[in-house]
Amino acid sequence: MKRVPGTRPSHEPVSELTTARLSVYLRSLDALEAAGVNTISSRDLAEQFQLNAAQIRKDLAYFGEFGVRGVGYYVKDLRRHLREILGLNRQIKVIIMGAGNLGLALADYPGFRHDGFDIVALFDTARDKIGQYSKGGVLIRPARDLPRVVEREHVEIALIAVPAAAAQTVLELVIESGIKAVLNFSPGTLRAPRGSKVKNVDLTLSLESLSFFLARGGDEHTE
Amino acid sequence: MKRVPGTRPSHEPVSELTTARLSVYLRSLDALEAAGVNTISSRDLAEQFQLNAAQIRKDLAYFGEFGVRGVGYYVKDLRRHLREILGLNRQIKVIIMGAGNLGLALADYPGFRHDGFDIVALFDTARDKIGQYSKGGVLIRPARDLPRVVEREHVEIALIAVPAAAAQTVLELVIESGIKAVLNFSPGTLRAPRGSKVKNVDLTLSLESLSFFLARGGDEHTE
Repeated sequence: MKRVPGTRPSHEPVSELTTARLSVYLRSLDALEAAGVNTISSRDLAEQFQLNAAQIRKDLAYFGEFGVRGVGYYVKDLRRHLREILGLNRQIKVIIMGAGNLGLALADYPGFRHDGFDIVALFDTARDKIGQYSKGGVLIRPARDLPRVVEREHVEIALIAVPAAAAQTVLELVIESGIKAVLNFSPGTLRAPRGSKVKNVDLTLSLESLSFFLARGGDEHTE
Repeated sequence: MKRVPGTRPSHEPVSELTTARLSVYLRSLDALEAAGVNTISSRDLAEQFQLNAAQIRKDLAYFGEFGVRGVGYYVKDLRRHLREILGLNRQIKVIIMGAGNLGLALADYPGFRHDGFDIVALFDTARDKIGQYSKGGVLIRPARDLPRVVEREHVEIALIAVPAAAAQTVLELVIESGIKAVLNFSPGTLRAPRGSKVKNVDLTLSLESLSFFLARGGDEHTE
């Protein structure tokens, strides 16, 4: 059977689906903490946020003993543990390749900074953009500065927001500069060089979920 | 126990996680069809795309009998069925609220059009933007035209790409205009009016997954 490029066998210890669920739990705990909730059972957590209680217990048990019998989880503690597990207990430096509309929007996306991600710079090849700033104040630098900035600033993650045709070349430049983790917003799947991790963000997936809702006559409601 | 705003009990027949998986299967089948693969077993599908074979069989069985004993799935047929289930076998009209960087980027996102979503218009309140076009040719209209455009063009989905502080108000305008399905890109959760479906896109989730990868020493590789 042919192997489709960009795919890989599943052999990692913790799957992407698990880490995605941990992020969702963290988001739920953020909301609970903001609402002043101190403790919560896996069942109530599941019910309030449309999750699966058994899955929550299983996912968390993988990383340690967080529940307390008769109490459930301490919201604040579990939130801190999840941030540690997800590596969010420190600031992570990020660059953005491509200062088009998407790159500029990502540079100023408020959620990133709030979550401990520091957008260090945008990179572009267009002369008229270089030296300009995003509205939020992120400088647009020439692509040739990439290796120097990555090394000096200890940049760990790159977001790719260039046209699809340029994405693979830009990915290779980014990996050569020493970055190992990449989030790709260009449509289409990229071939990740060995030792690197490339995550593709497909914005159509969410639209398809709405299309499904509409196809079934919109027989669902949200409070 | 306090109920956090924006959450709801789980009572719908098909969960969001299921529809998200259907979208992922569809994406995988797109790749297989493009690679000239005619049939595939659930096991090979799972292995190539890091999915769970039992889960694939279970998800698909919910919607009918698609597998053929000794053959697996016919890629082309299953792809067509999934597009029907997801309501993608017709064009869906979409508007975008907010013609900032994010709105403009979404208006020209190539994946949407490819998938049958037709971006009809952008809406904004800034006078200097109204009457302009995105690079891809989507007109920016004044917010007051919203109800008329939605009715005349039979718009079904709105994307919200306005600053967080304006998002709830814009959501209400959108629902009043007759739209029932909304994809919100503004940070923070919105209160969805009854009978509507609001899906929040949280761009930080993908970054957190990379952060997790880095926190574990990057001991994973992609081919």
